[in-house]
This record gives sequence, structure tokens and C-alpha cells, in this order.
Amino acid sequence: MAKVLSGAGLRGQVAGKTALSTVGKSGSGLTYRGYDVKDLAENCQFEEVAYLILKGHLPTQAELDAYKDKLRAMRGLPQALKDVLERIPADAHPMDVLRTGCSMLGNLEGEATFDEQDQVTDRMLAVFPSIICYWYRFSHDGVRIDVETDDDSIGGHFLTMLHGEKAKELHEQVMHVSLILYAEHEFNASTFTARVCASTLSDMHSCVTGAIGSLRGPLHGGANEAAMELIEGFTSPDHAEAEMMGKLERKEKIMGFGHAIYSESDPRNEIIKGWSEKLAADVGDDVLYPVSVRCEEVMWREKKLFCNADFFHASAYNFMGIPTKLFTPIFVMSRLTGWAAHVMEQRADNRIIRPSAEYTGEELRPVTPISER
Amino acid sequence: MAKVLSGAGLRGQVAGKTALSTVGKSGSGLTYRGYDVKDLAENCQFEEVAYLILKGHLPTQAELDAYKDKLRAMRGLPQALKDVLERIPADAHPMDVLRTGCSMLGNLEGEATFDEQDQVTDRMLAVFPSIICYWYRFSHDGVRIDVETDDDSIGGHFLTMLHGEKAKELHEQVMHVSLILYAEHEFNASTFTARVCASTLSDMHSCVTGAIGSLRGPLHGGANEAAMELIEGFTSPDHAEAEMMGKLERKEKIMGFGHAIYSESDPRNEIIKGWSEKLAADVGDDVLYPVSVRCEEVMWREKKLFCNADFFHASAYNFMGIPTKLFTPIFVMSRLTGWAAHVMEQRADNRIIRPSAEYTGEELRPVTPISER
Repeated sequence: MAKVLSGAGLRGQVAGKTALSTVGKSGSGLTYRGYDVKDLAENCQFEEVAYLILKGHLPTQAELDAYKDKLRAMRGLPQALKDVLERIPADAHPMDVLRTGCSMLGNLEGEATFDEQDQVTDRMLAVFPSIICYWYRFSHDGVRIDVETDDDSIGGHFLTMLHGEKAKELHEQVMHVSLILYAEHEFNASTFTARVCASTLSDMHSCVTGAIGSLRGPLHGGANEAAMELIEGFTSPDHAEAEMMGKLERKEKIMGFGHAIYSESDPRNEIIKGWSEKLAADVGDDVLYPVSVRCEEVMWREKKLFCNADFFHASAYNFMGIPTKLFTPIFVMSRLTGWAAHVMEQRADNRIIRPSAEYTGEELRPVTPISER
Repeated sequence: MAKVLSGAGLRGQVAGKTALSTVGKSGSGLTYRGYDVKDLAENCQFEEVAYLILKGHLPTQAELDAYKDKLRAMRGLPQALKDVLERIPADAHPMDVLRTGCSMLGNLEGEATFDEQDQVTDRMLAVFPSIICYWYRFSHDGVRIDVETDDDSIGGHFLTMLHGEKAKELHEQVMHVSLILYAEHEFNASTFTARVCASTLSDMHSCVTGAIGSLRGPLHGGANEAAMELIEGFTSPDHAEAEMMGKLERKEKIMGFGHAIYSESDPRNEIIKGWSEKLAADVGDDVLYPVSVRCEEVMWREKKLFCNADFFHASAYNFMGIPTKLFTPIFVMSRLTGWAAHVMEQRADNRIIRPSAEYTGEELRPVTPISER
């Protein structure tokens, strides 16, 4: 999310209640159901955090094992959904693919009643990586991959399908952290979209489909992709510094810095930055990570702007061989947990969300017959 | 929209500006860009009103002719979209079909830049009837229909495809009125969904896909379907009265009456009621229309609740041979104009919509190691 958010519609107006998260309560913190995101990222797997967000408490080992088994068994794609994905061209926007895949799933395995909300959410959590990778590998490599892998985690499942070989342990670990960091963020625009949709008592697939459409917007998701496009153009830290200074001088928009709500730092940055450094060492990188660090220094020195969660995600994902265009779909794989939990929360104490508008248009006037216009 | 809306989230809070419509300004009025909806329904075709809403002024005859020619030429479905529709089962929710069709269209003919917003909107306006009828006729009748008819209007195009024979003039006329009545309604939940999505600067297909998902909710769209299910159970006005009195006594929810914003009457009711009466005479009905009138009398006498736009739409659509499950998709074919115009308005003066939440959850707590939970 970019600095431009500081002038937001409805900012500061309370649109509902939530027990799911706090954002910037002490100026810099992020908590999910009372747990600091740093604490969760250090001590948990993503599936534990998904369980926490969706079911309300951190799972015991037995609960976690059962949950992971359940999700693992739900990775398969119905043939009709594969047929749809095969008809989406390689140059489509991957967020449009996920939006369509989620919507199509609602036709094939709809949420008949709200009693099924946990079930359909778990299914989406398990199958979104399958949807994105099936389409990506078919449209880009011409192969029909087997999406029912035995990987232990959602992140591992994604990487294994993407690369066609078992995910490395280090990479699976980073995916846990990354998915935890992106899982939930209060009433951001995509989550609010899901809640507005939920407030009409629509189904879960409609709510999530709408949220994907909102996250697609360049002011919301996509900042990590923009950060990647920035840093991959720099060949050294000095080159990065010169280019960044030029951009600042020309007042160009630079993505991955600052935040609408956090004022001093984004609590997620130091976590993903640490993992990006480990990945850089692992792959023997001596450009992308130092370039990223220099960008961070320049932005702080010149503008007192800090890196947000997206900036070091760019290099981290790149070191794991993830194509830039799939960065935002990973965000979806994670944020789905927050969206669904907000939908459930909205349903539990619902009032339809229907604000007012200030009218700025024409006063009452009669219709002129078409022959006299 | 049903009475239940009276306790709405954000009600009375201004979430933005609009020049598109006023709702209930004098307690009962509805205007589009300054024109009373009754005036428009009496004097215009739907395409004139769509033009008004989307382009800002009522068209001259030459502009209207050109616009209708343009829309007529855009009715065809890409083969990939037909393939998708053929994979959606007959028992799917028709709103899920439209949501998926719209989303898939975004993959095949995406909005590359906002310069294309008029073009992609006109395309959706022309092709939504094709999407819904192609799926309906294929899944229910097993036929692959030709969607490129030469009908003069959007409503005629829809009816001709649905019935497999040229639409009657009276029916085409009623479709003009119906589509005009549903075209725009300020910051209702689906339109607000579209604006929240637009505020991230996402694409038009995402905004409309999300709006369809919100309109699908039983508290928003679908009241005309519920009204149909109500009245088709009554065999005579006296039977209707007895049943309605029983429902009122048991405090059952009755759809199609009252409104969140209108307090005395829904300005759209008398218009569609008049056309329902004409259609009843045309088909020789002596049950459904008198039953509907009796329901209206009972609800007013007992509860001072008036019919909203949806109630007489049920009988009107039924007289034209439209299956009940397609009532809400017709709403989409019309409201698309309002949604798209609101997206354009949001883009022209954008602030990302990001409200706050009241936190009701757990205080800060440490993560317990999984072995100790």
C-alpha cells in the first residue's frame, strides 16, 4: 500500500466492529486476535495463523495436524474449472484469473447455506494455489500439472507446482512468514469490499471474488510487483542511489514506501527484510539485496519514508524464483483468511452497509422530447 | 430492497459525492441527473437513459441511433466465453453465472487503461443479455443459440434470445420501462461495492463483478424473485388475503414492501404496476394481477407498508414468460449503467475508501508454543 492512501474516503469513520486485528494501535503495531504479527511470524506456521484467524484460537498440535490434512486433501481442481483456466490466455492479468477461478468455483461448489462457510473457506484456501499454478503452467509452459501434491504446507504446495520440483525447506519457511504477514489488515479496501458484499447476505464466493477485484487495484495490492520493477532496473547500490535521487527530484511515485496508517515504520518490514537477507546469502546474490538496502537508506534519509511490507517482499520472492506477476496472487492466497473471517464476523452481527452521498448534480428538470433536443 | 434495510451500516454517513441521482429527496422522489424517473419512464427508451447516465446528457435522435447501432454490433460472445458458460451447470445461481461471465470477459477483453472505460462498459451493456441467455438456453434446453440478433433494443434482444422468437412490441416496451426503473439508485450496497473497488483504481470488470456479487444477496437484489414466489402460491384475491393475514400474524418476512429510504411510497411502483395491469389484460390473466393488488391493499391497510419497485415487477415479468430465476439478472442488465457511471465518477475524483473499525477483540497476548497449548 502506497503513501497516496493518506487521503482516504471514510478515513476515521467507523464502519463496523472487528475482533480480528488492530493496525497501528501504538503507532506501529499489527496484531491478529491479540497476537503481535512478529510473535506469530517467529513462532508459527501459516496454517496455525489461518486457523487462529478463521476459528478464533491457536490450534493444538493435533488440531493443526488435522487442519493441514484436511487442506491437503482439498487441493484438486474440478475438470470444469480446469477447462475454464485453459481458456484464459497467457497475457491475462493473474488477478483476473484468480477472480474468475474463484467465481467459477462458486458455480460448481456453491455455498448453499451459511452453515457451509467454514467448509467453502477451507476449500478456497487449499485450492487457490492450484488455480493460479494450473493456469500459469498451462498458459506459459503448455503443461497440465498435477495439483494434488503431498506438500506439507500451502506455501510449499504453491512452490512445488510452480517450479515442478519439491520446494526447498528454506523457501517453504519463508512462505510461511510471508503468508502470515499478509493474512489480515483490518478494514483495508479489499476487506471492506468483502464486508459490504457480505452485508447483503450474499455468498462467500461473491465476497471473495469482489475482494480479489479490489486487491487488484494499483493503490492496494501490487505494490510488491511495482517494487520489483523498480529494483530490477538497478545494477548496483550506487546506481540505485543515483536513480532514486533522480526519481525523487522528478517527484515520481515510488512504490513500497510509507503507509496510510503506520507513521514510523511498518512492523512487517524488518521481518521480511531479515528473510530476504538470508535468501540472498543462500542464492549468492550481491546485487538485489544490497540495492534494496540502499533504496531503503535513501528514502529514509531524503524523505523519512520507511519500507512497508511490500518492499523486501520483492527481492525475497525473486530469490525464490517466483515470477513478478504472481506476487499479488500470493497476497490473495494469504489475505483470503482475513477476508473470510471478516465475512463471518459481518454475518454474525449484520446490518446492510449503505452509506449516503452528497449530491452535486443537476436540479430537477423536465425531459425534452427527443425531436426537440 | 426490503424493509429490513432500515438498520443499515454507515446509514447517513456521507461516503462520497455523486451527480448521478437523488433518492427520496422529497420523501418519495427518484431522479437521474435531474430527471424524474417517472418522466424518463414515460418518455424514453432504456438506451436513452443509459446514454444519459453514462455520457451525461439525453441523446439527440442521431446520437441515440448511433448508440443503439453500436450496442447492436457488440452482442457476440467470444468462443472462450461460450466454452465457459457451457461448463456451468443448470442448477447454478444465475447471478453466479453473470458474475463469472463478467469476470471471464475481463480476461479476454480487459480494460487496459481508463481511456477504454466507455468502450468496455458499452460492451458489457450489449453482451450481458447474451451471457445470461446463452447459458440459460444451453443448460436448460441444450441449444446453442445465436446471440447476434437484430433486435432494436437491449430488452428486445433479451426476450428474443430467451424465447427463441421475435419479442412482442408490448413486451419490448415494458422492458424499456423496467430497465429504466432499475438503472440507478445512488449509494446502494452493490453500487457502493463498485465504488470501493474503483477507489483502488482497479479495472471496470473487477468493479462490476464485485457489484454483481453484492446484488446477489437476498437483502439487496432478489426481492422481485421472492415476491413472485409469494404471489404464485395464491389462487385468488381472497386466498391471498387469508394467507397474507396469517403471515402477518406469524410475523413472517414478506418481500417487496417498504423501503429503507422511501417513507411513503416507492415512485417506481405506480409505473410498473400500470404496465403489469396492461400485460394482465393482454394475456387474459385473472389471478396474478388481482392477487397482487389485494396483497398491496392488505399490506397498506394492516401495516402502512407500500409496494416497492420489486413487487409488481414479479407479475409483469411473469406475464412476459420470464423464468423467475432470471429476474435478478435483468436487474443487472439495467443497473450496470449506474454501477459503471459511479466507477467513472469515483475515478474522476478518487480517494481510496478505507474506513476504520471499532476493535472488540482480545488484548495483546504472547504466542504460547504449540507444545504447551
